[in-house]
Amino acid sequence: MTAPAAPSTAPSTAPSTSASDQPDEPLLLRDDRDGVATLTLNRPAARNALSVGLMAALRKAVADIAADDSVKVVILAANGPAFCAGHDLKEVRANPGRETYEALFRQCSDLMLAIVRLPKPVIARVHAMATAAGCQLVATCDLAVAAEGARFATPGVNIGLFCSTPMVALSRNVGRKQAMEMLLTGRPIDADEAQAFGLVNRVVPAADLDATVREMAEGLVGKSPLTLAIGKDAFYRQRDMPLAEAYAYASEVMTTNMMARDAEEGIDAFLGKRPPTWTGR
Amino acid sequence: MTAPAAPSTAPSTAPSTSASDQPDEPLLLRDDRDGVATLTLNRPAARNALSVGLMAALRKAVADIAADDSVKVVILAANGPAFCAGHDLKEVRANPGRETYEALFRQCSDLMLAIVRLPKPVIARVHAMATAAGCQLVATCDLAVAAEGARFATPGVNIGLFCSTPMVALSRNVGRKQAMEMLLTGRPIDADEAQAFGLVNRVVPAADLDATVREMAEGLVGKSPLTLAIGKDAFYRQRDMPLAEAYAYASEVMTTNMMARDAEEGIDAFLGKRPPTWTGR
Amino acid sequence: MTAPAAPSTAPSTAPSTSASDQPDEPLLLRDDRDGVATLTLNRPAARNALSVGLMAALRKAVADIAADDSVKVVILAANGPAFCAGHDLKEVRANPGRETYEALFRQCSDLMLAIVRLPKPVIARVHAMATAAGCQLVATCDLAVAAEGARFATPGVNIGLFCSTPMVALSRNVGRKQAMEMLLTGRPIDADEAQAFGLVNRVVPAADLDATVREMAEGLVGKSPLTLAIGKDAFYRQRDMPLAEAYAYASEVMTTNMMARDAEEGIDAFLGKRPPTWTGR
Repeated sequence: MTAPAAPSTAPSTAPSTSASDQPDEPLLLRDDRDGVATLTLNRPAARNALSVGLMAALRKAVADIAADDSVKVVILAANGPAFCAGHDLKEVRANPGRETYEALFRQCSDLMLAIVRLPKPVIARVHAMATAAGCQLVATCDLAVAAEGARFATPGVNIGLFCSTPMVALSRNVGRKQAMEMLLTGRPIDADEAQAFGLVNRVVPAADLDATVREMAEGLVGKSPLTLAIGKDAFYRQRDMPLAEAYAYASEVMTTNMMARDAEEGIDAFLGKRPPTWTGR
Repeated sequence: MTAPAAPSTAPSTAPSTSASDQPDEPLLLRDDRDGVATLTLNRPAARNALSVGLMAALRKAVADIAADDSVKVVILAANGPAFCAGHDLKEVRANPGRETYEALFRQCSDLMLAIVRLPKPVIARVHAMATAAGCQLVATCDLAVAAEGARFATPGVNIGLFCSTPMVALSRNVGRKQAMEMLLTGRPIDADEAQAFGLVNRVVPAADLDATVREMAEGLVGKSPLTLAIGKDAFYRQRDMPLAEAYAYASEVMTTNMMARDAEEGIDAFLGKRPPTWTGR
Repeated sequence: MTAPAAPSTAPSTAPSTSASDQPDEPLLLRDDRDGVATLTLNRPAARNALSVGLMAALRKAVADIAADDSVKVVILAANGPAFCAGHDLKEVRANPGRETYEALFRQCSDLMLAIVRLPKPVIARVHAMATAAGCQLVATCDLAVAAEGARFATPGVNIGLFCSTPMVALSRNVGRKQAMEMLLTGRPIDADEAQAFGLVNRVVPAADLDATVREMAEGLVGKSPLTLAIGKDAFYRQRDMPLAEAYAYASEVMTTNMMARDAEEGIDAFLGKRPPTWTGR
């Protein structure tokens, strides 16, 4: 959802979101290059509002990539004047009723968890405004790079619908007072605040956004995909455990990782001062 | 409790705290205006130390406000040279014994949880020093604005009584190393550090404190009180859950929120480009 | 483990780590002065890599100090060009096999938990690079002071072995996006970033490092050791609890603390405007 108060968060509704979806234009673009799959939200006229169709396309792409060994790293990008305006309010109100709403929020949460569980790093490339479930997408990615002009908001409170699912991701990136201010007031924060709050890793001029994201992605392509998968999975799991349990769990993970060929290879290459050759096993 | 080492954290004991409570002067002031209830700690001569009486008055005010539909937002302020010096040490030592202490800390924790559970946003207006349980009050409020001269400390360690209940709130606002430094050393931090650490949302010149807090409160008065209540409640609950459980819970919350008249009204008003009219249902 | 990509993270392997351990030179130095025990990692030629022997020596020192009433505060320091390079990769690969690895990571996790559970504050004195389990050591200490030239990294991903146990400590000091960047990319961060991320309390010129750490330690020596022990223990326990449970627990802790002679003495000394005399009871 977008904030009516802030002009630049702008309506996801003009022109009409369904009218703006052209049948021959896919809702989501995928471009693979050198181990990096770039997924691009492609409903620019609707400010990339997460319609049921776009969420389904994104969910399918995540599943496809999970099963695709040629992809090592994912970039999540967006076309048009906004990164993502959140849910598609027109669509939501066109199909009212508890069952529809339940299905909608279940679909959205399932999508976010799929990104968390995807065994490959996901980098958000945020060129512009990210609101509500769009801000949640950024918070959900493992890494995020923002252009200087990007902004972030959870303005659901302005339309009577608190950003309760976005806050799950937001409040796991950002301190409580800061998250609460965003959620209660709906105030957009700029890219520098987002970095200070912990929501994004880096802020760069718009002209450098692609090069910065590409460089970060290429660095990750050079790692063992098995190691990245083990580490990302363990990261989110251990973070939900009490300390001693987290250590017991992480010790098991490291032992398993150590038994893998890529760890043997990596260590031996390092000790032998040669570059490693990953097999992904 | 206050730090004997730092002169400016000053005694909560001179003049005598009970002597300083004038029978005809209430311990807590309440002023309601345009949907905003301002609660003002009013034991200035005792640096607003949280005597049993003051805590009871504050607890009652929170309960009253919870049941009062005319109040949308709460400001927590204080009179005199300090925001709040923590517990009233003289009173504590005048009534020694395990049962008294248990009752005291239970009363204090119950008060803090009542603020967390109050279904309305609470903004701390911190004009000066906040120590121990006073610092905890700031950490417990949903939002906090500090004057440039405000300071924050958990100096119980200096008098042999670690700030263990304050640290529950503090360590949920501030990173571990930073919380540990405050708790182990008792060192006061200034307002800018408090903002960098995540303890307060904003730091302004003393002359702008009232206007900043008032503006923040008025912005919240314009929201749907039902939406604020749903969101605040869900925020603290989901933060204590593991990720997948938090999403399942928050999805339910959003569905319930979506079924409320205020969400329908808010979305329709937004789509229709008109201001919403909240009914609080 | 150290990062092969970054030249300055440098090999823990040249010269050979076991060859570099001189039989008459202890792996760990201990120096006690005025209530402060300084433990110094002393495998400078191996960049203080945590061999089984060094971890055992450190674990024993922690146990000794736990039982030694003359020690109030611990400083963890290191000799040579690095603070600590993580595990001793040469030793690890010389003894391959699941059982060895399990024992290794169990030993390491047990050491980290022993530092957390040691009832005395531990300050990391970080003069140079801290990588992998070395970075974990810093994250595990209660407080940390870094020299301006210090750097921090979790570069296991570069050798196929994700820093899964280090991330347990790291991700409890540093926000998710920032921890993930360190873990996924292996990029070293400098001292200022480490402070902004929450990993260290203070950054000072190298020439001021000893004085700053010493001053911090001496401040802690002046506190009641009983109070420090109660508070440190409660801090890590309550942080793993949901809010209401944390309050119930912390209230019990404060009551117990209040019943101790040191609290009575501290409060009475404060009220009587005289310095307290701690008995540690």
